Amino acid sequence: MAAPVGVFDSGFGGLSVLRELRRTLPALDFTYLGDSGRAPYGGRDLDTVLDFAEQCVERLFAEGCRVIVVACHTVSCVALRHLQARYASSERRVLGVTIPAAENAVAQTRGHIGFIGTARTIASHTFRTEAHKLAPAVRVTEVAAPLLAPIVEEGWEQTDIARLAVERYVAQFDGIDTLVLGCTHYPLLRDVIERQARELAGHDVAVVDSATAMAEAARDQLGTGANRRDKAGRLDCFATDTSRLDELAPRFLGEPLTGFELVDL
Amino acid sequence: MAAPVGVFDSGFGGLSVLRELRRTLPALDFTYLGDSGRAPYGGRDLDTVLDFAEQCVERLFAEGCRVIVVACHTVSCVALRHLQARYASSERRVLGVTIPAAENAVAQTRGHIGFIGTARTIASHTFRTEAHKLAPAVRVTEVAAPLLAPIVEEGWEQTDIARLAVERYVAQFDGIDTLVLGCTHYPLLRDVIERQARELAGHDVAVVDSATAMAEAARDQLGTGANRRDKAGRLDCFATDTSRLDELAPRFLGEPLTGFELVDL
Repeated sequence: MAAPVGVFDSGFGGLSVLRELRRTLPALDFTYLGDSGRAPYGGRDLDTVLDFAEQCVERLFAEGCRVIVVACHTVSCVALRHLQARYASSERRVLGVTIPAAENAVAQTRGHIGFIGTARTIASHTFRTEAHKLAPAVRVTEVAAPLLAPIVEEGWEQTDIARLAVERYVAQFDGIDTLVLGCTHYPLLRDVIERQARELAGHDVAVVDSATAMAEAARDQLGTGANRRDKAGRLDCFATDTSRLDELAPRFLGEPLTGFELVDL
Repeated sequence: MAAPVGVFDSGFGGLSVLRELRRTLPALDFTYLGDSGRAPYGGRDLDTVLDFAEQCVERLFAEGCRVIVVACHTVSCVALRHLQARYASSERRVLGVTIPAAENAVAQTRGHIGFIGTARTIASHTFRTEAHKLAPAVRVTEVAAPLLAPIVEEGWEQTDIARLAVERYVAQFDGIDTLVLGCTHYPLLRDVIERQARELAGHDVAVVDSATAMAEAARDQLGTGANRRDKAGRLDCFATDTSRLDELAPRFLGEPLTGFELVDL
């Protein structure tokens, strides 16, 4: 496992996925690419998202990566199959966050899974499709929560604004027992979401953090050597815009920054 | 004035500008183009915004318009000079929302103007630049309010979420006497913004609706014949995506729809 694992996102939110990957696989080297100069991808047409995703993947391959993790839910939902068809081989792999989240949710649900994400992620219905491939009888309700990522970007997770917005979105579910966080920004709202989901349901709701699910899937796929703890893996970070880096990146990564290099794709 | 006036925006928000234009100039024919399929423009690089704006302008010229109103604040701030240099002539004019708003605010301020808009609009500092051209001694404070447009798109204007978010943004001003609404979505939050600004300032704050200011400037520039009330002007509407049209358009336009035609740019 000499090659670093590449992780990319349309911005810095994917650092919440990198955080879980590093926690689960501390011996691995990682290379992170945040396409913050063109974030968010959500409003762009499909061809543009595919082009940007290809550029990110090719840059990470050029940095020596052989396994790429698509940390962005929107890109995972609309572009993963395309990226795998184009790049995956016995030497190179491309993994997304949607399937691990679906596997994790299906493994623990008692029958009704809720999924929240950005408008674009929800419109793709990729999560529901993947969950139904695994368990056709499971009920899946998807809710678009377009205000939650901007609330996190403002740093307002601990405000009444966050609580009230989460309440409105979670109230759109009826009788779920498992709730999947389908956006890289939502782990920062996990406590608020978990509390509201429990209060509205009147019973415990299992919250699935897609970042944790992704890290567990990566550990299973990359083999046992990857999570040895006798050396600390290296982290290299690249971004296409660094103007909000100092403000945003440490909150998603959960630790101080080791330095980002500005790149052009 | 046989030719219709063209109005465009990255989505349906510009219908709040069209609404004021039609109210002020009821005899004129208008053609509206909402580039909803590529909205919002905010996260895109400058070259892309310029390309999209050119496509909108050229489409409206092709529809027979001779005067174009750029209803989107982001496009006005970053692309108006470019559009004017490229297209304006004795036959064709391109007007933006920023300068009328600055003129209106400067005319009534007692010395300190506040301006709220999207992150991209604020980062351009175009409003401050235009206000200082008119009145170099006036103080201008610009505040980015990235949550407000999404709140309006959710239809949550009358919620505590809207009130609390507006409160947080307005609290960033200190001692303003005039507040400019620098986004097409904000007229729908005008009451909330006006109340919070007054409460926090402890005195009346004059609120400048850029849409109204634009309509008054258009009336001044298009001549006295344009606001005759003896005939009702025609309205033709085009959009590049109509999936959220029925939900959003009537709220910004303030009246039922007369029908939108789906177009490709």
